[in-house]
Amino acid sequence: MLLHMSTWKEIDERLKSSRTVIIPIGSNEQHGPMGLLGTDWLCPEIISHAAEKEGDLLIAPTFNIGMAQHHLGFSGTISLRPTTFMAAIEDWVDSLARHGFDRIYFLNGHGGNIATIEATFSQIYSHYSYAAEPCPFIMKLRNWWDLPGIASLCARLYPQGHGSHATPSEIAVTFAAYPDFVKSAAMEPRIAPNGPIRDALDYRDRFPDGRIGSDSSLATVSDGEQIIAAAVKGLLDDVAKFQAE
Amino acid sequence: MLLHMSTWKEIDERLKSSRTVIIPIGSNEQHGPMGLLGTDWLCPEIISHAAEKEGDLLIAPTFNIGMAQHHLGFSGTISLRPTTFMAAIEDWVDSLARHGFDRIYFLNGHGGNIATIEATFSQIYSHYSYAAEPCPFIMKLRNWWDLPGIASLCARLYPQGHGSHATPSEIAVTFAAYPDFVKSAAMEPRIAPNGPIRDALDYRDRFPDGRIGSDSSLATVSDGEQIIAAAVKGLLDDVAKFQAE
Amino acid sequence: MLLHMSTWKEIDERLKSSRTVIIPIGSNEQHGPMGLLGTDWLCPEIISHAAEKEGDLLIAPTFNIGMAQHHLGFSGTISLRPTTFMAAIEDWVDSLARHGFDRIYFLNGHGGNIATIEATFSQIYSHYSYAAEPCPFIMKLRNWWDLPGIASLCARLYPQGHGSHATPSEIAVTFAAYPDFVKSAAMEPRIAPNGPIRDALDYRDRFPDGRIGSDSSLATVSDGEQIIAAAVKGLLDDVAKFQAE
Amino acid sequence: MLLHMSTWKEIDERLKSSRTVIIPIGSNEQHGPMGLLGTDWLCPEIISHAAEKEGDLLIAPTFNIGMAQHHLGFSGTISLRPTTFMAAIEDWVDSLARHGFDRIYFLNGHGGNIATIEATFSQIYSHYSYAAEPCPFIMKLRNWWDLPGIASLCARLYPQGHGSHATPSEIAVTFAAYPDFVKSAAMEPRIAPNGPIRDALDYRDRFPDGRIGSDSSLATVSDGEQIIAAAVKGLLDDVAKFQAE
Amino acid sequence: MLLHMSTWKEIDERLKSSRTVIIPIGSNEQHGPMGLLGTDWLCPEIISHAAEKEGDLLIAPTFNIGMAQHHLGFSGTISLRPTTFMAAIEDWVDSLARHGFDRIYFLNGHGGNIATIEATFSQIYSHYSYAAEPCPFIMKLRNWWDLPGIASLCARLYPQGHGSHATPSEIAVTFAAYPDFVKSAAMEPRIAPNGPIRDALDYRDRFPDGRIGSDSSLATVSDGEQIIAAAVKGLLDDVAKFQAE
Amino acid sequence: MLLHMSTWKEIDERLKSSRTVIIPIGSNEQHGPMGLLGTDWLCPEIISHAAEKEGDLLIAPTFNIGMAQHHLGFSGTISLRPTTFMAAIEDWVDSLARHGFDRIYFLNGHGGNIATIEATFSQIYSHYSYAAEPCPFIMKLRNWWDLPGIASLCARLYPQGHGSHATPSEIAVTFAAYPDFVKSAAMEPRIAPNGPIRDALDYRDRFPDGRIGSDSSLATVSDGEQIIAAAVKGLLDDVAKFQAE
Ligand code: NI
Ligand code: NI
Ligand code: NI
Ligand code: NI
Ligand code: NI
Ligand code: NI
Repeated sequence: MLLHMSTWKEIDERLKSSRTVIIPIGSNEQHGPMGLLGTDWLCPEIISHAAEKEGDLLIAPTFNIGMAQHHLGFSGTISLRPTTFMAAIEDWVDSLARHGFDRIYFLNGHGGNIATIEATFSQIYSHYSYAAEPCPFIMKLRNWWDLPGIASLCARLYPQGHGSHATPSEIAVTFAAYPDFVKSAAMEPRIAPNGPIRDALDYRDRFPDGRIGSDSSLATVSDGEQIIAAAVKGLLDDVAKFQAE
Repeated sequence: MLLHMSTWKEIDERLKSSRTVIIPIGSNEQHGPMGLLGTDWLCPEIISHAAEKEGDLLIAPTFNIGMAQHHLGFSGTISLRPTTFMAAIEDWVDSLARHGFDRIYFLNGHGGNIATIEATFSQIYSHYSYAAEPCPFIMKLRNWWDLPGIASLCARLYPQGHGSHATPSEIAVTFAAYPDFVKSAAMEPRIAPNGPIRDALDYRDRFPDGRIGSDSSLATVSDGEQIIAAAVKGLLDDVAKFQAE
Repeated sequence: MLLHMSTWKEIDERLKSSRTVIIPIGSNEQHGPMGLLGTDWLCPEIISHAAEKEGDLLIAPTFNIGMAQHHLGFSGTISLRPTTFMAAIEDWVDSLARHGFDRIYFLNGHGGNIATIEATFSQIYSHYSYAAEPCPFIMKLRNWWDLPGIASLCARLYPQGHGSHATPSEIAVTFAAYPDFVKSAAMEPRIAPNGPIRDALDYRDRFPDGRIGSDSSLATVSDGEQIIAAAVKGLLDDVAKFQAE
Repeated sequence: MLLHMSTWKEIDERLKSSRTVIIPIGSNEQHGPMGLLGTDWLCPEIISHAAEKEGDLLIAPTFNIGMAQHHLGFSGTISLRPTTFMAAIEDWVDSLARHGFDRIYFLNGHGGNIATIEATFSQIYSHYSYAAEPCPFIMKLRNWWDLPGIASLCARLYPQGHGSHATPSEIAVTFAAYPDFVKSAAMEPRIAPNGPIRDALDYRDRFPDGRIGSDSSLATVSDGEQIIAAAVKGLLDDVAKFQAE
Repeated sequence: MLLHMSTWKEIDERLKSSRTVIIPIGSNEQHGPMGLLGTDWLCPEIISHAAEKEGDLLIAPTFNIGMAQHHLGFSGTISLRPTTFMAAIEDWVDSLARHGFDRIYFLNGHGGNIATIEATFSQIYSHYSYAAEPCPFIMKLRNWWDLPGIASLCARLYPQGHGSHATPSEIAVTFAAYPDFVKSAAMEPRIAPNGPIRDALDYRDRFPDGRIGSDSSLATVSDGEQIIAAAVKGLLDDVAKFQAE
Repeated sequence: MLLHMSTWKEIDERLKSSRTVIIPIGSNEQHGPMGLLGTDWLCPEIISHAAEKEGDLLIAPTFNIGMAQHHLGFSGTISLRPTTFMAAIEDWVDSLARHGFDRIYFLNGHGGNIATIEATFSQIYSHYSYAAEPCPFIMKLRNWWDLPGIASLCARLYPQGHGSHATPSEIAVTFAAYPDFVKSAAMEPRIAPNGPIRDALDYRDRFPDGRIGSDSSLATVSDGEQIIAAAVKGLLDDVAKFQAE
């Protein structure tokens, strides 16, 4: 069930049987010479929407702009400042909790979001902690690449060149979902360098085409289909466990 | 051109010929017994994506959560607080301006967003005003229903019962784009009441099924197709004028 | 009754019979070559203080600095940033609501304030909306030029050259109230240009003497007296309706 | 010269010879059974406007709402939270500095404002201090009762019962300026108690009629006239020294 | 009892008999050519820890970074912006109040902190004041040099050259506690100049070696021992009175 | 070299040869029935001060209050809200960068700080990223237990019962440094439970004595000495690498 394609009465009805909601969350940022700018929000959207067709899930709209300050040196990147990102996540959670959702699950597509999302969870819980009141809901952050079964699959598909940004796996997921938007580009060097992540100008100096440690050109539509299938299964299992908590 | 389906190099290339970007912006909120929760962000997304197929536009990802505090009494509504909404819009604009965009056009789908978006424009401009520096970009807000040609079309299609929330026109647009999600419900009363908008509990008391002044059941797929066609034309004209400014 | 010229015991007493309070709110900003910098806060102050003499109103102190970032290119303009303006309005409202006022009416004198005041109302209501609690008071914004009877009077007095900033009507109101401060200046051009409002430097380029669309020199003391009389009547009627709600 | 009764061109002209501006700042809060709610902003307004008639001063509009959280237990008090107060002062200063004012003098009428105004000065200066840039203006806070000559005059007029809130001296100033609003009330006890200032309920418990340490009933119009005369002289001297710095 | 050298169970136990806690608070900032950067937080720490050995006190960890924007022109100074300082103090207080502490006593070592701490107290109390709820705790600010007995002792020890920054008394306290860190430097001029405190560059111009009005070289270990002994006594008395309130 | 035990001239001198500074950062929070409330800030302070005696390091004052909202159910815990923590870290960094430090190394003692510190680094870098300016300094976060050599040592010392909160290793470090404060308590159960970390009441329910997964009673002074020695070596190596970057 897609929340945004439902009426409020349908959500009211759903809340009688399940109080869990899944929020695909990502970022809109450069993904190297052949990756889509939307990759990081498209991946959790693709996976969660595919899972919704196979299981009994409620998927919220996609939270598509995250914390990508380090990518601002590349055109098309849109970032929230960490403090803005925190405020926005808090308002999403407060809205959903207002309706009675008590299991709020973020399926994340961007490594750069993790610290800020976790800091936000602490911020949200802290209101209850200072007030000595029980928080009526719980939150969970899961990166799609950490879903059960994904790491081993990617290791098998990409023994070399997986890297950590503009990875062939995330690009494959978008290619499988949007084959009309498959792009290609020469990778120079084939495997991109590694290094620390700091401000945008430093990033652009270290990683001239935007990739980190990856060979994006390994991505294929068929890989993407396998990854999506595995992630759907992993997500359904993971949400089931969360719901049962 | 859809920004999120492009690579950063494609955006870099585009910036050589055009520095205009369109942001579909809306809200995720109750739309009465048969309107989709996503109506207000789906409409500008539908219209701008349709226009992108016919003209030379660059469309940013959809800003899908807006200011809908008054709808929080209905399940599924997700709202940003005005101050959060302002901070988020500012970060989107700062990101896009960072790349050189100098015409930032918001195509809005939610009346409740207008005041806060305009206050944000003032906030953004004010940084330059206090510093006595020229602002290197300009921003424009346009509600899709204010695009040239739309008001007269809606008046013709719905001489009665158009109203102002969960209107047949906005619902028709979503039905035309997503015919698999056409819903129906009895309208009681057929035309919903009117009244002021305040906090969420007051709203729910005044407008028990969520609609204001409208008969949503007038919406048809075919109306939606006409409205989309008119809005596409209106948008292309309006953006052309903005670009020429 | 002027709140600031009363003791707390008198306000306590008043609250037993009426819980309505009127806040004159405006801006301190350039008003062209012959308009007073205080015009936008003087007008609602003049009108509400005149009305207080004729009806049973409680008038709060004047909120004299508003959102005028676009006028900062002209000496003497004092502006709050929108976010500051919002915080200040919220504190005024919280203070008045603390005492039991449940009808808080802002008589506004500056078009540039409107969006931010409305965004603030949403911010204030949102605290109740997220908490699922009823808001114990209601707020209303009324521009003095939108009071019943004013638009038609101004159209009659100034069939040409009324414009939208440094208008003869607002200047006439201040001249009628403060005849010792009547000023005159050559209008070049007689009717000022129109255009969009953005940052301060852009504003000064477009509107070199500060006026927008107006011929301030049409203002006379006698016009001002008529406008004040009409506005007093309009205000008393409008507040009575608000009180009865 | 009253800033708000001037045109921007007059302020432009003035800036050629003097870059000093005086801001009357106070609070709107209970002042016991016979003191006006506006006392604390009326006093600096009265004194500075009187001084403007005798010397060459430029007076800004009155900053009429300050930090009065502890008085919120008494009807009619309007307070800004300290953080809001700080933001508002900062925006006033930024606006005035934008025009080239480099001596910004606050004539204060409320003891409860002092700490927050000083903290704000630090906040404003800190932007320059972190940036290692010179601050192009200086700010000064002066309480009107600390102007040269006032303390000794008040000690002479009120050897007993001056106290620290709803003092006969401040009430006398307002009575002298607004003889139509002279009020009287029985003082019980004649001299109010002293004690610490904390939250609003604690304040109301300690100081049931609002006064602290004072016998407001000692105030006379003629005292007020003497105090105003002395304060005018003190202000002109003090501003002259500030200007010469 | 040192809070940070205790277990939570020991604090739980302590709360049964006393709900008072003392927070040493200061600043880390330049103290002239021979004063330690830590002087202002070391002094209240030294005094309170010494007092803890003689009386029944509970001492919190030291709040070591305060408001020192004006000292940022000198290497090693670390400052919080006033608004940050306020937020941090508020969180400390909220944490301690959460456990039931109802007497929160700040022993301050830095004059530059005073205004901001007092503004913070108002901010904290204001939450209760707007909500019309009693604040369950009280706060007190005491500068160590204002403890009973200190001013007269310092006047006796340093009839000349005490000054107001990098004073011989504060330096003597640190020397007595940390004799291994006794430093010396030529004082040029012997007694430093006086003047107003503004931004960092202005400060450095006025006070080239950092001192204000003082001759730091008067400090001796033996003075420090006397001052500490007097301050310990003063603190025990002062806290006893606060506790009894 | 301890920054707070130095004069500003000594820091000035030091900056000529090294622009690196180490900030011990932790938290003040419950550490089970026998761990000190200060454990998490004492450990990095102990280790860095020990290292300072053996190598050429500059150690800033200890940042002793961190993000510990989940521990607020236990007396003595003092926490900053994540947003406050971020603002404070930013001000520390801005202060140090103001003096020319370009390598800012946080030695962290609290797992709960990590996400918020990393989010803060992003916030700090983002100012430069939006402005398209190079950030003149780099920051590094290192948990002391992740220093080279520590994990293996702890695994050897505590093959069982190390856990993740109130661990024998961290308690041992404090015991070694402060043998007068060695405490003991019965561990029931011997090894504490594991589980997720949420709000304070949930935490207290899951972890009744405060420990997570650990047997604190394994801590000995002699272990602590070994761990400190290893950490000193690890820190010197790690900082040398950072400095060389
Ligand atoms: Ni990615
Ligand atoms: Ni709608
Ligand atoms: Ni106007
Ligand atoms: Ni007063
Ligand atoms: Ni000092
Ligand atoms: Ni720990």
